[in-house]
Amino acid sequence: MLDLEPLLRPRSIAVIGASTQPEKVGGMPIRLLGELGYAGRVYPVNPGADTVQGLRAYPTIDAIGEPVDLAIVAVPAASAPDVMTQLGRAGTRAAVVFTSGFAEVAGGAALQQTLAANAQAHGVQLLGPNCLGAMNLRARMFATFSPIPLTGVPPVGEVGLVSQSGAFGAYAFALAREAGLGLSHWVTTGNEAGVQVADVIEWLAHDPDTRVILTYMEGARDGARLRRALAAARDAGKPVVMTKVGTTAAGASAAQSHTASLAGEDAVYQAVFDEYGVHRAPTLEAFFRLGYTLARGRRPARWHARGGLPADAVAPVAIVTVSGGVGIMMADSAESLGLPLPPMPDAAAHALRTAIPFASTNNPIDVTGQVVAQPKVFLDALAGVARCGEYGSVAAFLAGGANAPRLWTELQQTVATLATEPESAPLLVSGVMDDEKRAWLESRGCLVFREPAHTMEAVAALAKAAAMEALASAPAEAHAPPAAIAPPDFPGHATALSEAEAMAWLAEAGVPVAALGVAHDADEAVRIAESLGYPVAVKLCSRTILHKSDIGGVVLHLKDAAAVRNAFARVQAAVRQTRDADGQPAHFEGAIVARMVRGWGEIMVGVRRDPVFGLVALAGIGGTAVEIFRQMAFGLAPLSRARARAMLAQSRAEALCTGHRGHPALDLDAVADVLVKVSRAAAALGDRLDTLEINPFIVGADGLCAADAVITLRHPG
Amino acid sequence: MLDLEPLLRPRSIAVIGASTQPEKVGGMPIRLLGELGYAGRVYPVNPGADTVQGLRAYPTIDAIGEPVDLAIVAVPAASAPDVMTQLGRAGTRAAVVFTSGFAEVAGGAALQQTLAANAQAHGVQLLGPNCLGAMNLRARMFATFSPIPLTGVPPVGEVGLVSQSGAFGAYAFALAREAGLGLSHWVTTGNEAGVQVADVIEWLAHDPDTRVILTYMEGARDGARLRRALAAARDAGKPVVMTKVGTTAAGASAAQSHTASLAGEDAVYQAVFDEYGVHRAPTLEAFFRLGYTLARGRRPARWHARGGLPADAVAPVAIVTVSGGVGIMMADSAESLGLPLPPMPDAAAHALRTAIPFASTNNPIDVTGQVVAQPKVFLDALAGVARCGEYGSVAAFLAGGANAPRLWTELQQTVATLATEPESAPLLVSGVMDDEKRAWLESRGCLVFREPAHTMEAVAALAKAAAMEALASAPAEAHAPPAAIAPPDFPGHATALSEAEAMAWLAEAGVPVAALGVAHDADEAVRIAESLGYPVAVKLCSRTILHKSDIGGVVLHLKDAAAVRNAFARVQAAVRQTRDADGQPAHFEGAIVARMVRGWGEIMVGVRRDPVFGLVALAGIGGTAVEIFRQMAFGLAPLSRARARAMLAQSRAEALCTGHRGHPALDLDAVADVLVKVSRAAAALGDRLDTLEINPFIVGADGLCAADAVITLRHPG
Repeated sequence: MLDLEPLLRPRSIAVIGASTQPEKVGGMPIRLLGELGYAGRVYPVNPGADTVQGLRAYPTIDAIGEPVDLAIVAVPAASAPDVMTQLGRAGTRAAVVFTSGFAEVAGGAALQQTLAANAQAHGVQLLGPNCLGAMNLRARMFATFSPIPLTGVPPVGEVGLVSQSGAFGAYAFALAREAGLGLSHWVTTGNEAGVQVADVIEWLAHDPDTRVILTYMEGARDGARLRRALAAARDAGKPVVMTKVGTTAAGASAAQSHTASLAGEDAVYQAVFDEYGVHRAPTLEAFFRLGYTLARGRRPARWHARGGLPADAVAPVAIVTVSGGVGIMMADSAESLGLPLPPMPDAAAHALRTAIPFASTNNPIDVTGQVVAQPKVFLDALAGVARCGEYGSVAAFLAGGANAPRLWTELQQTVATLATEPESAPLLVSGVMDDEKRAWLESRGCLVFREPAHTMEAVAALAKAAAMEALASAPAEAHAPPAAIAPPDFPGHATALSEAEAMAWLAEAGVPVAALGVAHDADEAVRIAESLGYPVAVKLCSRTILHKSDIGGVVLHLKDAAAVRNAFARVQAAVRQTRDADGQPAHFEGAIVARMVRGWGEIMVGVRRDPVFGLVALAGIGGTAVEIFRQMAFGLAPLSRARARAMLAQSRAEALCTGHRGHPALDLDAVADVLVKVSRAAAALGDRLDTLEINPFIVGADGLCAADAVITLRHPG
Repeated sequence: MLDLEPLLRPRSIAVIGASTQPEKVGGMPIRLLGELGYAGRVYPVNPGADTVQGLRAYPTIDAIGEPVDLAIVAVPAASAPDVMTQLGRAGTRAAVVFTSGFAEVAGGAALQQTLAANAQAHGVQLLGPNCLGAMNLRARMFATFSPIPLTGVPPVGEVGLVSQSGAFGAYAFALAREAGLGLSHWVTTGNEAGVQVADVIEWLAHDPDTRVILTYMEGARDGARLRRALAAARDAGKPVVMTKVGTTAAGASAAQSHTASLAGEDAVYQAVFDEYGVHRAPTLEAFFRLGYTLARGRRPARWHARGGLPADAVAPVAIVTVSGGVGIMMADSAESLGLPLPPMPDAAAHALRTAIPFASTNNPIDVTGQVVAQPKVFLDALAGVARCGEYGSVAAFLAGGANAPRLWTELQQTVATLATEPESAPLLVSGVMDDEKRAWLESRGCLVFREPAHTMEAVAALAKAAAMEALASAPAEAHAPPAAIAPPDFPGHATALSEAEAMAWLAEAGVPVAALGVAHDADEAVRIAESLGYPVAVKLCSRTILHKSDIGGVVLHLKDAAAVRNAFARVQAAVRQTRDADGQPAHFEGAIVARMVRGWGEIMVGVRRDPVFGLVALAGIGGTAVEIFRQMAFGLAPLSRARARAMLAQSRAEALCTGHRGHPALDLDAVADVLVKVSRAAAALGDRLDTLEINPFIVGADGLCAADAVITLRHPG
């Protein structure tokens, strides 16, 4: 982990290129640090001035006479690399470089490389270049040239914010200030020649002042580093909210990502985020709302991890409403988020119906407009469901009720009492009310929203956070590492395994494959077929011809010896008509004779190499459906069983295994374990693996069985 | 159309059950009408008081001595029906009934029926019962018992709001007031014993004071009436924003919909909304935002209707941003909405790059943080794209830029100039700014949002509105009605057609079906097979046994006469083992011999009867995919070609027809016309039709061909 202490908690700061004019890039940090109350020492460095904005100035960094923790660098791009060297020699430990004109412009990559190399060589932690700097709100440390803190600073709080984009960061700062969302740190990483978003996430995961991490990212430069950072946050029980842009082709093209962007790339990011329980925010509004929810919201009193996945946890919720119509909207929203709506317990329902005969005591619990005349009935219902132990959270729609003086007074009493009962389910409120009432409720752990649907989204996010936090605090299970699998034997120059080799390798890794043999003549083919039992398939077996069905190299459903002989001849002829890379007729290496596998559906499973995250597994329903609906699910390889289960669910492949069209239901854990084994088989090939694809896996009464497999190889480096 | 003039523009109002206490249900309307400046006459009716809240009171409605337009009725439920009779005799033309205790409570349906019957018999237009009343903002007419107008009223504007739920209506009123959204009328319909939401939509469609209609609905009581109302709004060029709740099982159960709710019911509503270009709002936030957008937003300068569907119209948009990161988010959002992002024209791009070399002149157009130093460059870029004729709309992200005094002054000049140029593309802005600046921009036709993604959603909504408005103002095309098809001949007691009858009927309606004949013995089966050519299928033909494959009544892929004989015998035997309703062996009526149709995919097309909207067509990819992905598209039958095209696109069935796996592409209009003909064939069966299902339609080089058809019949009434 990078030590960002000198960068984010510096005891002293030098400003290289300090300006006497406070509105200049080299002047603004001095103004901010002075006016806003930074308690450390500030040293302007400017060879042409004795004082800068009232502070004694130094001609060089050396002239300061003592090492400083952090240097803010506002010099022309061409001078910046030398400054790194000087800083390092003077013992400065971190530098924020505002200057632009590096890798983001044509021809600027080399200068950036020099900058980074100098910083690294001299032990200087580098933030930027082309960034808007960093702030530590608690320490009133404003290492930025943005004037935005001059017009107000958000309260000190537990939300750490890190953004690759400076302008996004500045806008987020303004919105946080407006919403009163408390921040701990604010960091923009710009060109990321040194410190990356991932490094900041990892540091904030260990920072005692930060509880929630808000992140904006265009792309990860280092997938492994991002995974390590997200794992650190998960292990610390700190929710990460992520806005990852460039999700569409238009967006990705706008982002001009330096990674060779796959069309499916966003699905890979999503798989990574799912793996670590990251809360994804598609809009700025959702980004802040999730920050508010996770920083301020009490976790549900009850929740459960669906399919064993903490990232898919949900909480049962009681909807208490003064409007039947809005109650229905909230129920729609709960169902689409998977939040259960258990009915109101009998005693509470009876009490409510006795007081308001027309009230609905199903869930949503509708006390109707009677709330105005009988506020106590409404509040008794609220307290009743909060205390009964059936619900994780209580979501109440008040409309304008909080502005009714009598209701407000009684609501305060109820909320204050419930706040002293840690066992009770937390309350989330939607409705209109003034800022003072909102603040009062929030101070008692009660979140307030304008939009009723947002209370439901908040319950879902809080359930997920609770499940991830429980995971963090649970003692780590001692997992025996899976037994190592010896990779198969193949020539160094091979670009693929033959199907027979691939199937054998998968079988060795524990993956069920169709019974088969390799025949070199028709007699042998018939002998193999008879030993396997009919029907069989005869397929060309080659390390070089991969698209064997395209050239007529696959014959299926053979029912007798004559058919096998005939098919063998056809396959052999097909090979002879094929040319190899040198233009010579391809060499016939034999034909696979495989038992036809019976089943009622097809699943496709693959492993590919992602440029950012390395090996990625994918799965989905096979056949035409895959191509048209493109509902594939992704996971980092090797897969955990939980991730494989989630992939079966997300891709809907699960539907083929759970009593599809009257067929028997399969053990989903066993099916998931097959995916896990495939991913391990791929991972065991290490750097040599290019792609692995099993298409189809036949779904039948005995579970999955691979009917075909392709493994292509690459030469690393 | 119901004449709601006396209800919504009354010249005089009587309050039956008028109370001297202004906070009572019978007192509040008198207080509101008096305090808020209603200009018409108000007559309290109360036999026990001489004056009510300072107005002369009358003991009965007759004592008023002249007919009044509207009566507000606040009497106990049991008395309400008699009041209707008295009102009618006194010449009162409309009544708002606040009272609850009718159909919404057990045993209250009969009383409501009497209420409605009395009102109808005496020519009284009835709003309610169990409703919160109505308001006409321009006329300051507040026929409600909600005290909410006392604390403030939204500005008078062009948005008409109608809500089935009173509490939703009241909350919407409060939010409109807070957002400054101008309203024309506000109507709640409650139990809808008389006036329904649909009636109010239709009236507002003709109301000169209303330009946009906001609607909240739990369910339509009368599908035909709703369609007529939506058609009237469409023909008047007035956008309808709809929040229809009960979209999920939980929501539908909460709504306790009186219609026998199909799981797919919401999809049928959605098809209706699509048909009429209704803007659907899933949340309260979206409801208001769409109202704001459509009421205040200038329509795009250019747009096009995708697939010929105005409801799917999009506009090319220029994104101009001061933050690259937010620009990417906006590009992602544009792409997911289908909004094209054409590149900046060369001249404008050149000018921008000359002024700011690091600016990105792709679209998104990123002027970078230089906007602060060079506001003119930013504004020139903005005006350049607005004027160039390439874009429908311009979406600008300003961050906090509007608060920079110099930028704001110059922005005002640019916006004011563009506002005088009707040809220029309208501007939508996102960023933070104070209310005064926002109002200034809005008054120049420039919408302002906090969330950048919302500018994109607004462009999409405005493009759709522009396309629907163009449709309204275009001269109606003279469509020749399709030639009437004579329904087939079948016995009155039949509950289904046999497959042979169904296929013949479809063929007569112009639907391509597999060539077939009906054989009564094996010899005849072989003769038919030989005349059709092999391979053939042999299938049981019966009006009573519909699930023929379940009993072994279907044998496919028969390649010669022996196979046909064998299959015929199997089918005949299968029938003999089946019992009819009386427990007797089923009667063998013959077997279909049909040519096997070749193709590369299957589409399923059906027509069902929806309890609200009548005949509904559905289509999707056939086979396992349908069951697992459930991606069916719906449309009201008979379909238009445009709707059928939209269904092919929405269900992805289109993918099978556009060069799937190297197969030839089909003429999509011709494919859509087959769906149209199926829907007409179903409609021609009128009230007798229960369901029609063609599964599968084989997709092949000659287009679609029906390989099987089931038509079931019902006995109306």
